Amino acid sequence: MRATTIHAPGDVRISEVPDPTISAPTDAIVKVTAGCICGSDLWPYRGENDIDAGSTIGHECVGVVEEVGGDVVSFRPGDFVVVPFCHSDNTCPHCRAGMHSACENQGFTASGQGEYTLVHQAEGTMVKTDGQPDPAMIPSLLALSDVMATGWHAAVAAGVREGVTAVVVGDGAVGLCGVLAAAHLGAERVVAMSRHEPRQEIARAFGATDIVAERGDEGAERIAEITGGVGADAVLECVGTDQSMRTAFQVARPGAMVGFVGVPHGVELPVRRMFQRNVGLAGGMAPVRAYLPELMDLVLDGTINPGLVFDATLPLDEVAEGYRMMDERRAIKVLLQP
Amino acid sequence: MRATTIHAPGDVRISEVPDPTISAPTDAIVKVTAGCICGSDLWPYRGENDIDAGSTIGHECVGVVEEVGGDVVSFRPGDFVVVPFCHSDNTCPHCRAGMHSACENQGFTASGQGEYTLVHQAEGTMVKTDGQPDPAMIPSLLALSDVMATGWHAAVAAGVREGVTAVVVGDGAVGLCGVLAAAHLGAERVVAMSRHEPRQEIARAFGATDIVAERGDEGAERIAEITGGVGADAVLECVGTDQSMRTAFQVARPGAMVGFVGVPHGVELPVRRMFQRNVGLAGGMAPVRAYLPELMDLVLDGTINPGLVFDATLPLDEVAEGYRMMDERRAIKVLLQP
Repeated sequence: MRATTIHAPGDVRISEVPDPTISAPTDAIVKVTAGCICGSDLWPYRGENDIDAGSTIGHECVGVVEEVGGDVVSFRPGDFVVVPFCHSDNTCPHCRAGMHSACENQGFTASGQGEYTLVHQAEGTMVKTDGQPDPAMIPSLLALSDVMATGWHAAVAAGVREGVTAVVVGDGAVGLCGVLAAAHLGAERVVAMSRHEPRQEIARAFGATDIVAERGDEGAERIAEITGGVGADAVLECVGTDQSMRTAFQVARPGAMVGFVGVPHGVELPVRRMFQRNVGLAGGMAPVRAYLPELMDLVLDGTINPGLVFDATLPLDEVAEGYRMMDERRAIKVLLQP
Repeated sequence: MRATTIHAPGDVRISEVPDPTISAPTDAIVKVTAGCICGSDLWPYRGENDIDAGSTIGHECVGVVEEVGGDVVSFRPGDFVVVPFCHSDNTCPHCRAGMHSACENQGFTASGQGEYTLVHQAEGTMVKTDGQPDPAMIPSLLALSDVMATGWHAAVAAGVREGVTAVVVGDGAVGLCGVLAAAHLGAERVVAMSRHEPRQEIARAFGATDIVAERGDEGAERIAEITGGVGADAVLECVGTDQSMRTAFQVARPGAMVGFVGVPHGVELPVRRMFQRNVGLAGGMAPVRAYLPELMDLVLDGTINPGLVFDATLPLDEVAEGYRMMDERRAIKVLLQP
């Protein structure tokens, strides 16, 4: 099959690789309808993470079940499914506690930017739609495989609830989904920190009540003004750099939580400040499967439309251009069609 | 008046210092019935915090109101009060959110190991008993000025609730109060990490269901056994060292919270591990005033008896011996009688 492979920083290609095969009764193979490029794919692309040269890349996709192993009883070939990037059995103690991303039988989607992908623990991982979805729904369903569930996790970890003021640090696709999640979970004010006009627009469409274009100390000052000097009740940290984490703690009011979902790179947590101001930190790799049924309902009934984060669609063959577009911030998030 | 002063590492004395005076209408002066030595007083005593030579020390006390400023309307001379170590107006946005330790008009008890102490923002800080308490209640009421409320804060920040397994790291007075809090808040299992027989006994009296005497990796292995390999739902970090914090994160299950109340000294937070395992951190300086009314009821109706943490009582004049006893771990916590 054709799939995206990464060979060195800046070097992603379409390669011919072996088709995935069922090797365990818990496996399934999904024919990818749509995949996409994640902000975290840019870490190896930029040479900031190690690269296993020639390996496939891409962990987000939706598609149609092609084949299932003997233990997969709830799915049949032809079912349309959302595939959480992190695979889970949905039965271990961590899954039962809603922490599917720590499943004892954890696996990951490895060729979401390809024609087919293998799903480990398919029974406990995939969630299907009733029949084939309207093609117009594909982007929003695709967003549920990672980015929307991750923004949702940031909001949940930050303790967003009715009436709070939430600040979202980061205007990438995850941050924008964080805005959508915070608004949906009842935040009265949702402040999106964003300097980029097209992203500000999506943030507003997703429910942002305020936009702060300033960064660093200036951005924190603007948040202080907006919150009457008190600070935010909940902060969603959706980047993962030391600078963004510092901003998150700067704008949080005493007693607030920072929900973080950006894979931390070079982050040093300000433990003394956290202690003195009682600002907590929670989050991590999102338990997509835990949120997926609820989020799928919200997408299918039209309540949320996270697919708006895809501002570019390319044929899979042009994946290299997709990476360049995201690397150069010419696109927020690129959808790929095999 | 006589009060404890600190002059250099290892050098605390009883000195004659000026009596406190009312300088703001929000002030009150309290005649100390009982004060005590806090684990955090040992940081300067051991030379690990800066010392302002000759300054008074001691932030925990209960006593009788001696004099009040013009704005203090709920208290009269003769009232018996618990004085939270951190003073707060109980009206600012942080107080209204229950985060009294971040009050915009914050103050601190400065001569709790003396004959009298000044209370800033007395109206919003002090809580009185109905009439004079039974002398047998004094230790437990004194514990509410800091140590018990701090252990309680650890349990709240760690998210202790009905049915969970909680682990308490640290068997100082705060850790023991954390055990009491976790048990009272409904934890089904409360694991106290303690090597010291007298402390293990108090932990059991406070509701510990399991004692782990091992430390570090061995201790973490024992917790893994106790929790069937899953880890603890809630972890109370009641020490503040890098080692204790590391243990706290080691024993937490994915999705758990670590509640921390030990002033951090040399702590580096394991941000990658926190992310990968979705283990959060919350806590800090306890908002004593927020918890005090409820805790006072629990003490006065005999439900909790945190005064058990005082295993030594000395006249104020022997405060130097009290510090030595705690420094050498000959005493868990020393009560001082002026």
